[in-house]
Amino acid sequence: MPDLSQQFASDNYSGICPEAWAAMAEANQGHQRAYGDDEWTARAADHFRRLFETDCEVFFAFNGTAANSLALAALCQSYHSVICSETAHVETDECGAPEFFSNGSKLLLAKTENGKLTPEAIRELALKRQDIHFPKPRVVTITQATEVGTAYTPDEVRAISAVCRELGLHLHMDGARFSNACAFLGCSPAELTWKAGVDVLCFGGTKNGMAVGEAILFFNKDLAEDFDYRCKQAGQLASKMRYLSAPWVGILQNDVWLKYAQHANHCAHLLAGLVSDIPGVNLMFPVEANGVFLQMSEPALEILRGQGWRFYTFIGAGGARFMCSWDTDEARVRQLAADIRKAMASTH
Amino acid sequence: MPDLSQQFASDNYSGICPEAWAAMAEANQGHQRAYGDDEWTARAADHFRRLFETDCEVFFAFNGTAANSLALAALCQSYHSVICSETAHVETDECGAPEFFSNGSKLLLAKTENGKLTPEAIRELALKRQDIHFPKPRVVTITQATEVGTAYTPDEVRAISAVCRELGLHLHMDGARFSNACAFLGCSPAELTWKAGVDVLCFGGTKNGMAVGEAILFFNKDLAEDFDYRCKQAGQLASKMRYLSAPWVGILQNDVWLKYAQHANHCAHLLAGLVSDIPGVNLMFPVEANGVFLQMSEPALEILRGQGWRFYTFIGAGGARFMCSWDTDEARVRQLAADIRKAMASTH
Amino acid sequence: MPDLSQQFASDNYSGICPEAWAAMAEANQGHQRAYGDDEWTARAADHFRRLFETDCEVFFAFNGTAANSLALAALCQSYHSVICSETAHVETDECGAPEFFSNGSKLLLAKTENGKLTPEAIRELALKRQDIHFPKPRVVTITQATEVGTAYTPDEVRAISAVCRELGLHLHMDGARFSNACAFLGCSPAELTWKAGVDVLCFGGTKNGMAVGEAILFFNKDLAEDFDYRCKQAGQLASKMRYLSAPWVGILQNDVWLKYAQHANHCAHLLAGLVSDIPGVNLMFPVEANGVFLQMSEPALEILRGQGWRFYTFIGAGGARFMCSWDTDEARVRQLAADIRKAMASTH
Amino acid sequence: MPDLSQQFASDNYSGICPEAWAAMAEANQGHQRAYGDDEWTARAADHFRRLFETDCEVFFAFNGTAANSLALAALCQSYHSVICSETAHVETDECGAPEFFSNGSKLLLAKTENGKLTPEAIRELALKRQDIHFPKPRVVTITQATEVGTAYTPDEVRAISAVCRELGLHLHMDGARFSNACAFLGCSPAELTWKAGVDVLCFGGTKNGMAVGEAILFFNKDLAEDFDYRCKQAGQLASKMRYLSAPWVGILQNDVWLKYAQHANHCAHLLAGLVSDIPGVNLMFPVEANGVFLQMSEPALEILRGQGWRFYTFIGAGGARFMCSWDTDEARVRQLAADIRKAMASTH
Repeated sequence: MPDLSQQFASDNYSGICPEAWAAMAEANQGHQRAYGDDEWTARAADHFRRLFETDCEVFFAFNGTAANSLALAALCQSYHSVICSETAHVETDECGAPEFFSNGSKLLLAKTENGKLTPEAIRELALKRQDIHFPKPRVVTITQATEVGTAYTPDEVRAISAVCRELGLHLHMDGARFSNACAFLGCSPAELTWKAGVDVLCFGGTKNGMAVGEAILFFNKDLAEDFDYRCKQAGQLASKMRYLSAPWVGILQNDVWLKYAQHANHCAHLLAGLVSDIPGVNLMFPVEANGVFLQMSEPALEILRGQGWRFYTFIGAGGARFMCSWDTDEARVRQLAADIRKAMASTH
Repeated sequence: MPDLSQQFASDNYSGICPEAWAAMAEANQGHQRAYGDDEWTARAADHFRRLFETDCEVFFAFNGTAANSLALAALCQSYHSVICSETAHVETDECGAPEFFSNGSKLLLAKTENGKLTPEAIRELALKRQDIHFPKPRVVTITQATEVGTAYTPDEVRAISAVCRELGLHLHMDGARFSNACAFLGCSPAELTWKAGVDVLCFGGTKNGMAVGEAILFFNKDLAEDFDYRCKQAGQLASKMRYLSAPWVGILQNDVWLKYAQHANHCAHLLAGLVSDIPGVNLMFPVEANGVFLQMSEPALEILRGQGWRFYTFIGAGGARFMCSWDTDEARVRQLAADIRKAMASTH
Repeated sequence: MPDLSQQFASDNYSGICPEAWAAMAEANQGHQRAYGDDEWTARAADHFRRLFETDCEVFFAFNGTAANSLALAALCQSYHSVICSETAHVETDECGAPEFFSNGSKLLLAKTENGKLTPEAIRELALKRQDIHFPKPRVVTITQATEVGTAYTPDEVRAISAVCRELGLHLHMDGARFSNACAFLGCSPAELTWKAGVDVLCFGGTKNGMAVGEAILFFNKDLAEDFDYRCKQAGQLASKMRYLSAPWVGILQNDVWLKYAQHANHCAHLLAGLVSDIPGVNLMFPVEANGVFLQMSEPALEILRGQGWRFYTFIGAGGARFMCSWDTDEARVRQLAADIRKAMASTH
Repeated sequence: MPDLSQQFASDNYSGICPEAWAAMAEANQGHQRAYGDDEWTARAADHFRRLFETDCEVFFAFNGTAANSLALAALCQSYHSVICSETAHVETDECGAPEFFSNGSKLLLAKTENGKLTPEAIRELALKRQDIHFPKPRVVTITQATEVGTAYTPDEVRAISAVCRELGLHLHMDGARFSNACAFLGCSPAELTWKAGVDVLCFGGTKNGMAVGEAILFFNKDLAEDFDYRCKQAGQLASKMRYLSAPWVGILQNDVWLKYAQHANHCAHLLAGLVSDIPGVNLMFPVEANGVFLQMSEPALEILRGQGWRFYTFIGAGGARFMCSWDTDEARVRQLAADIRKAMASTH
């Protein structure tokens, strides 16, 4: 198999972290009731409620696409619309899943700076069309941390939820990298979600050391009515649920989730620091969570590829994304930074 | 946690088998490309092609509900209908998932004996309505082994596929317990599927020692056009796909899948044999795969429940389902049979 | 063009009644605002509110399939189910439209006598499955008058709505032939609907002298939230709405709707009376609304067909449906009865 | 009722033209078979085949939203995407109907000049994303005449269909104002459609003198498979179909459709000519079909509104749309032009 130790392409190239693995191994004993009616699932749900300091409703879906789409579908009908950033994963990388699960809801895209929606952008999109010939805005979704590596502060989330309340919109948070946002901001999960007005959070585990199994947390419990049926019908109810929930127990206890997110963020910040003085290399977005987006010359990127480094370049000419994960090796980060320096020098 | 060693409620109460676990552990090394573009997924697909002796298209979905529904949706449009047995899992236990994934296809239910569709029943349902005011029949789905523990012989499958071809219907096989059917019939997977005219098979791993990850095999490759997009949009594309595919490598190599299916079947046959002479206990269906359906008195069932035995009784008054799995303990089977004998004696 | 004056196949073979036509002609003057924002639509809505003695929400859809499906979709989600009679039009003749509009809701079919659901049948279906592996019952739909020509009394509707309230189910009435039910029962529209606990009525005009344009009346106004968007998205908002609403004004004023329904019913009762003493001819269902279902020999039916009579025979061997409409000619009814008598005599 | 003789807001504010009305009156004789199995529907279909000089498949839907959405749904699956102009009616004014009917297909929007898609724009959108994380392009839809009153020449359509064939895309034409395009270009319907590579045309009658009933013409007959079922399930099969088809007979015979489109276009060109020398009034788009889009000051627009003139101003600050229809009065056009001149003079 190919050596992928030099990969910074995606945080989902990483494997299962030891703590999640150990919990899964422990769960793999004997028989357990199916479909979430087992001990591990109850324990995981309790962990979430403790961590978020509130009696939220907890569900599990197999992946982030399904978690987001199921949640959005629960918040709106087919003739409603969902306001999001033009860089939102639900728009750019889920192959129309939100539209499919909701049977046709439309995504309304806001141009954003640093990947973050603003109250002004939401208001403008929500008020632009108010006739029945265009889908009625009903939900706002924000990604925390964003797809370009930035994080909404609690104040920013509160400002957004205020405009949502004013305009009759629900607020959904895509938390595929919620851990990284918490780690960067130093905020509690509660502060970043329900205390700031978030109705539903999709909390991602896959990018932070799990195999499958994103959690969907309804802080607004009215919105969770019959959500278990919705999951089942959409093919998102695991029969052997313990293998989705036990890993959550493994990473929720002892704040393992936070430790790994801090590590991934640390690696990103390290990389950003190490390349900050290289002529011709520019940060495209502030480095806050675990991603580093660099503007650099195509020849230099070509050299890096030739050396075996892996990264994404979908962002536009000369833009490269380097993602760090829970198991990124600091030495590799330093090596990458050194190779970037050399590549730039040789091509300048 | 409760002692579930006495459970015969469902084969999905069991855990992950050692071979699947070992493969998963081996796969959990370093980084791998995401979304199925990894080595393990390629290996698993090759294993399927070797096992089925044909160059089929292979996909993975998280669970059986999704696998079946995605496959059926690929075979028909919303205004088409799907012919199935009234006991089919797609009808009775998937919460309308086939209707959801296909955006409205209707299931046409045939009364069946021993859970098996017949060419006559298919023909009758397919020809009953041929006007545009009723959904047009387009697919037949059969479950192998059936929900009541019986198995279609290759001849029976061939007879069904012949009527399908005649009437312009696709043939889908729900193989949640396909391993058990192979084990009972002593047939090769190829004989039971494409050689007998099956277009698509959903091959279940969960009930035979895996955690998640059913395989969808298109023998009719034309029907697989853009199926990868369909999976992705429906939230069924795993980012860390290796954890779905590696376990398949673990159980496909060395015919582990067959060994475990044979064991589960053996336990069911053992149980059936041990209770065959008990007055008042009657088999509801022939015991072929890994399930035993017993007709017995409600007071006797109550005694068994009180002793800690777990089983389903959804089949009607006095009917009880006892399922055996890859890890069922023979001693427990003997104990169960003895307890049934005692319970019947004490309530007669 | 073929002579269809001998047709009793369907009440939608008839044309537009003079009063509806006159209103449409009157509406066809100059310009009017589009999409229901016109005078005629306001007038029609007011007529409905007066007729039903309540401030209901009024919408229009192009046909009955759409009206029923939109209403049902507003009352449930995709993972819910709808309880209906096995003879209900939504099940037998709408090509899966309810499933399509709701994105997958399942119809649960009750065996019925004389086409009428009972509280017992509803209770049994609603309570049969209460686990998440099967769609959750959420709506009951009854057809008034039924597909076999019978009518629910106000007491019967009240008994049904009582069990609906008890079990948390909404109550929908498919009123494709609501006029005929009112005419037979001598009840006010209010008595037969909201006063008896109906949440939503689809009031059919097509079978009673209109071209297109069924009315959807929400007595439970909460259920009508954003229903205008639902209609628009589903392609059911007429731009030149006045041509749907003006004919309603034409038939609602001066109780034209009732006069024509009475006439159609009268013709059906006349036919039933005239054949009542013919040996070998039996009524399959009580004649209440405008349909007569006769059991008679196939050779006799063949003779009638040869004479140019048109009727449906989908009900089973030897069953024939004769429908009367707003413009059925009494002389033709008498001629038909005479021909039936002769046909039976010659084949006996 | 309000005087709407001064309205230029929409061509669907107009009524039914005499020829359509007369045909409907003629059709309103006696009984006819339902659901399109009548003489008028056969005659209308034949008229279309003669007019388009080809044996196309002909269907009818109640309105344009449904016609477009049904056609697009027939051309793609839920995980596909549809390329259109950002000004396309399917995007801006159908409340997500294409997404609903197709169960989630995404519209990909091209920036356009004068409302017209170009081969380059199509190619760019089609090739931008070719991974399974984004819907796969499958259809191109163009509006003829466009929403801003321009028309594609046969050469432009041919260039578009060439890129469609190259990229494996189907080509749909929204012809809500197809008559006006034919009238402007002086082309035959065949030249503008199948001879130029169009697969499916939705031919609008409502804006050209009918009440309801858009025609859907499949030139690529393979794409029409089971389309009758699709229409039925989606609530778009009229029972009394003759009232949709007869008006088509009325306007197709003797080229009535063309005469009225020419008149509407003439009125638009007249208006454009009369205001062309007014300082401060500028055409926003070339005047080709029956719409005139003027840039003028807001105070002037306010004066016009005060005088009772009706028009749309959704296009942006100071933009006003004036639509002419089959029955627009030339004297009113002249009066409008004069009032615009005065309004501009008094506010300059």
